[in-house]
Amino acid sequence: MRTSIATVSLSGSLTEKLTAASRAGFDGVEIFENDLLASPLTPEEIRARCADLGLAVELYQPMRDIEAVPEEEFARNLRRARHKFELMRRLGADTVLVCSSVSPAAVDDDALAAEQLSRLADLAQDFGIRVAYEALAWGRHVSTYDHSWHLVRTAGHPALGVCLDSFHILSRGSDPRGIEDIPGEKIFFLQLADAPQLAMDVLQWSRHYRCFPGQGGFDVAGLLRHVLRAGYRGPLSLEVFNDVFRQADAGPTAVDARRSLLALQEAAGTADLPAPVVPTGVAFAELVTPDVEPVTAVLDALGFTRTARHRGKPVDLWQQGQARVLVNTAGAVRREGTQLAAIGLESPDPAGAARRAEALLAPVLPRRRAPEDAPLDAVAAPDGTELFFCATGQPHLPDWRADFEDVAAPADTGGVERVDHLALTQPWHHFDKAALFHRSVLGLDAQESVDVADPYGLQRSRAVTNADGSVRIALGVGAAPTDDTAHAQHLALATGDVVAAARRFRAAGGRLLPIPANYYDDLAARHDLPDEELETYRDLGILYDRDAGGAFRHCYTETVGRLFFELVQRDPGYRGYGAPNAPVRLAAQHARHTAR
Amino acid sequence: MRTSIATVSLSGSLTEKLTAASRAGFDGVEIFENDLLASPLTPEEIRARCADLGLAVELYQPMRDIEAVPEEEFARNLRRARHKFELMRRLGADTVLVCSSVSPAAVDDDALAAEQLSRLADLAQDFGIRVAYEALAWGRHVSTYDHSWHLVRTAGHPALGVCLDSFHILSRGSDPRGIEDIPGEKIFFLQLADAPQLAMDVLQWSRHYRCFPGQGGFDVAGLLRHVLRAGYRGPLSLEVFNDVFRQADAGPTAVDARRSLLALQEAAGTADLPAPVVPTGVAFAELVTPDVEPVTAVLDALGFTRTARHRGKPVDLWQQGQARVLVNTAGAVRREGTQLAAIGLESPDPAGAARRAEALLAPVLPRRRAPEDAPLDAVAAPDGTELFFCATGQPHLPDWRADFEDVAAPADTGGVERVDHLALTQPWHHFDKAALFHRSVLGLDAQESVDVADPYGLQRSRAVTNADGSVRIALGVGAAPTDDTAHAQHLALATGDVVAAARRFRAAGGRLLPIPANYYDDLAARHDLPDEELETYRDLGILYDRDAGGAFRHCYTETVGRLFFELVQRDPGYRGYGAPNAPVRLAAQHARHTAR
Repeated sequence: MRTSIATVSLSGSLTEKLTAASRAGFDGVEIFENDLLASPLTPEEIRARCADLGLAVELYQPMRDIEAVPEEEFARNLRRARHKFELMRRLGADTVLVCSSVSPAAVDDDALAAEQLSRLADLAQDFGIRVAYEALAWGRHVSTYDHSWHLVRTAGHPALGVCLDSFHILSRGSDPRGIEDIPGEKIFFLQLADAPQLAMDVLQWSRHYRCFPGQGGFDVAGLLRHVLRAGYRGPLSLEVFNDVFRQADAGPTAVDARRSLLALQEAAGTADLPAPVVPTGVAFAELVTPDVEPVTAVLDALGFTRTARHRGKPVDLWQQGQARVLVNTAGAVRREGTQLAAIGLESPDPAGAARRAEALLAPVLPRRRAPEDAPLDAVAAPDGTELFFCATGQPHLPDWRADFEDVAAPADTGGVERVDHLALTQPWHHFDKAALFHRSVLGLDAQESVDVADPYGLQRSRAVTNADGSVRIALGVGAAPTDDTAHAQHLALATGDVVAAARRFRAAGGRLLPIPANYYDDLAARHDLPDEELETYRDLGILYDRDAGGAFRHCYTETVGRLFFELVQRDPGYRGYGAPNAPVRLAAQHARHTAR
Repeated sequence: MRTSIATVSLSGSLTEKLTAASRAGFDGVEIFENDLLASPLTPEEIRARCADLGLAVELYQPMRDIEAVPEEEFARNLRRARHKFELMRRLGADTVLVCSSVSPAAVDDDALAAEQLSRLADLAQDFGIRVAYEALAWGRHVSTYDHSWHLVRTAGHPALGVCLDSFHILSRGSDPRGIEDIPGEKIFFLQLADAPQLAMDVLQWSRHYRCFPGQGGFDVAGLLRHVLRAGYRGPLSLEVFNDVFRQADAGPTAVDARRSLLALQEAAGTADLPAPVVPTGVAFAELVTPDVEPVTAVLDALGFTRTARHRGKPVDLWQQGQARVLVNTAGAVRREGTQLAAIGLESPDPAGAARRAEALLAPVLPRRRAPEDAPLDAVAAPDGTELFFCATGQPHLPDWRADFEDVAAPADTGGVERVDHLALTQPWHHFDKAALFHRSVLGLDAQESVDVADPYGLQRSRAVTNADGSVRIALGVGAAPTDDTAHAQHLALATGDVVAAARRFRAAGGRLLPIPANYYDDLAARHDLPDEELETYRDLGILYDRDAGGAFRHCYTETVGRLFFELVQRDPGYRGYGAPNAPVRLAAQHARHTAR
């Protein structure tokens, strides 16, 4: 099916929007009137630009407050429409969106509305134009899709059909099954948008909080199935009003938009993408560092051993249990400090995982970073993190460890068993994008987003995981782009005994993040923990949380560059990441930072 | 009355919050539990710190999910309460806030709730503590203030009273008159917050969008009057959860908070502030510039004459009609470019205006900037703009023009009559603050806030004016702190004939901002303007708007530094500022910027 995007969904000048839509692979665009008005290009030039970029002008929008008004006003509206139809002819657009009236002058008279829509369609037909009539969720008298279809059917005009918009339908809680009663050829256009489930005024919700399908809480795929069963064969077009997208670069937003449409088509059974290959574990976490000593000192104190070194590059493998950390000193930028740069994901089919990622527009990285390297499939996540699809120790598949030369056996002295989770901070504009990427490209499940109070602003965090929890990635974002504290990342290591692990770390010279005594007084008030246990936690700075499935005990190392480590003892049934303790952790990190 | 602020209303560490509250002149604080938990200070140290800063610990908050639960759970709740009461004794806090339960375990049983609250109060009394019970707007069974009072009255315990919160009362639409039926001594605490009128889930509304009294849409002063009539004599305490304040510097936020309380007390008739002195006109606009030639070239083309120069400083007065522009080359920073730095406001009582401003915590500037200057009363607005209270040509009052030496008579050739409005861009965190400042300090009226779509993000704009429109200031803010385009300011000049003024400007070598042809095609579709008039607008780049009161015609000069000029022909009844045209103007400015 053809894909399209409304220019209002992207930021920048009209030229920038068109270029971004074309580069992301869209077949067409809806041209939003305000974008045209503000453009120095004439309609003919815009038409030529679209043609050069391989974009059809699928829709011109919107025309407002047309129908169900006194005759005198309708005459003025027709005059206005004639101007717009002339413009559309110059633009090469053959479908116009007409939104149900919100005018106080509109009367509640279906017969009048149908009659006037029919006369509008008459005029449109003279210009070779089709009128797609859409029920706005906040329309004055017409606010549901079945009502708009009733008017279109009553009018019975060949140049008049309906435009369906998933936001307007799903935000009202309308049953989308009735769409199948509309003949497909009378559905002139389909606009798709998702939105988070918010209880708020629908106009505000629509204008500021829409998002791409798969980023919100609506069953957009279900709606699409009904529309396709009705026989609709027009384009799938995204129309998203979102305050954040308005500020983000148009290029990445357009790619994200196309990815959401591909995933939607797959969910609706109309796209043939390579099947998802869900990762089955974390093969390694790769740190880049301009200053290797502080990082390796922490790794050493945590009980890691430098077990191997890369044959061709300044990369060391540190290992303990199944936790592997690569420390890479090549290409690190001092200003950016030590950071998590790549994740190795165990994959049952690395090549298939890469094909899936590529089909979903993830940038594919060269298979060999150097001629002598083993071939490794890898893609870049939206935040720039490199994701390697690994098959550690699998027969008949390349093993990334072949590039490494053993230097020592792991001592496994620190009690660390494996990676529990990785926490990556997303750029401000990329939070929703990141969740969609990890779900669609990697086949991970996204948990609910949670707010976390930092002393200097709210942060949000959302985890993506596989079914057995052997891959857990927490995606975080700061409250505003200026919040530099939002840039800390961390690597959480699983242990069966966090008290023993923390003690060993400290005995080996490691520094744990100190937690205020007040936290432990509150813990005593909230939970019936034995005094001795509480004193141990207080002494070591261990935090405690509990959900219906069990307990979570965790502590933090001090931060090195942009990175810190967490030691985690997780009861098998516990689903979270200690979020209730995050404000205390963040305040303690700010305090250390200030004290330094 | 004593004033207080909840620590959750301010950003930073607990120490930073306390310092900011003290510096802004608050008498006390509510200590929010999470701020204490995250603080490295012990309760005793916090108590001492508050004492040093002259702050009473008015409240400890919140205690949640206490009442109307099965006995076994209540026993656990009492155990938790005992811990908190011990903590409060160390902290020196004698009132605790208990919020109505939101627990799914709570039962709808007023008798049980009252009985358990009474037992909680028994325990509290042993510690010398009072329990202030508050109905959360989203409480499970208790969500209105009269219900909370019913339980408190039923319990009949001397250590149990109600806490009233303006947000919880007004967001539910409860009638606040019933407050007068509560004996004043049973109102243990009063929390004050305002909020914008939003139709959204009340919990989200409360947690993210509260603001200080006078910044939102609630009649907080009306509520306060009822509380005072009931006989309440405790502190007035602000409790505001707001995503923006969480990120803003605590110091200015605390000053803003105190200013809002002062204005609230005045509105409720309990504060004795100097009366507002509303400005009656614009005496001058002062530009600072590191590069004088481009600015004076524009002024010259607009028909201004350099009529005078300052006797002691590199400041020139340019005049035309009643429009006066000071061009100051002292102290300008090249990086910041040409900008509006000060506004002279005509005042019937400059000294009184300054006293009012000082009483409302506006920073007062030295009366003489140099020993030889005439004494001028001036204060700084939150965005740093200096506001001078002037009495141009008033007998018996100092005239700022005395510092200037005439060099020429104004030629008045450009058709500019006076300043129509000034548009100032506010720092990202200061938008609500700015409106409150201009309303309370200057006695101006604030119009509704409007959204304006810039190609790279939404902007908001809100105008403050005096009654006859002779002072109009448009306060704008960008969509995000990274939006550098948000920093443009402008000076709008009123003319009786914008076509003639624009022609003269162009003939004199001035460059007007070009407006796309598409805009004029749309204007033809929307309004019945004569072709000739339309062609004239198209030629000159004149924009057109109309409201119920009349028409507005305007055009823009190109931008110099951070500043551009607007020529404005305003029908007397037109109230706006051409906001519907702003997206076209912004896109055109971006296009020029990119082309350069």
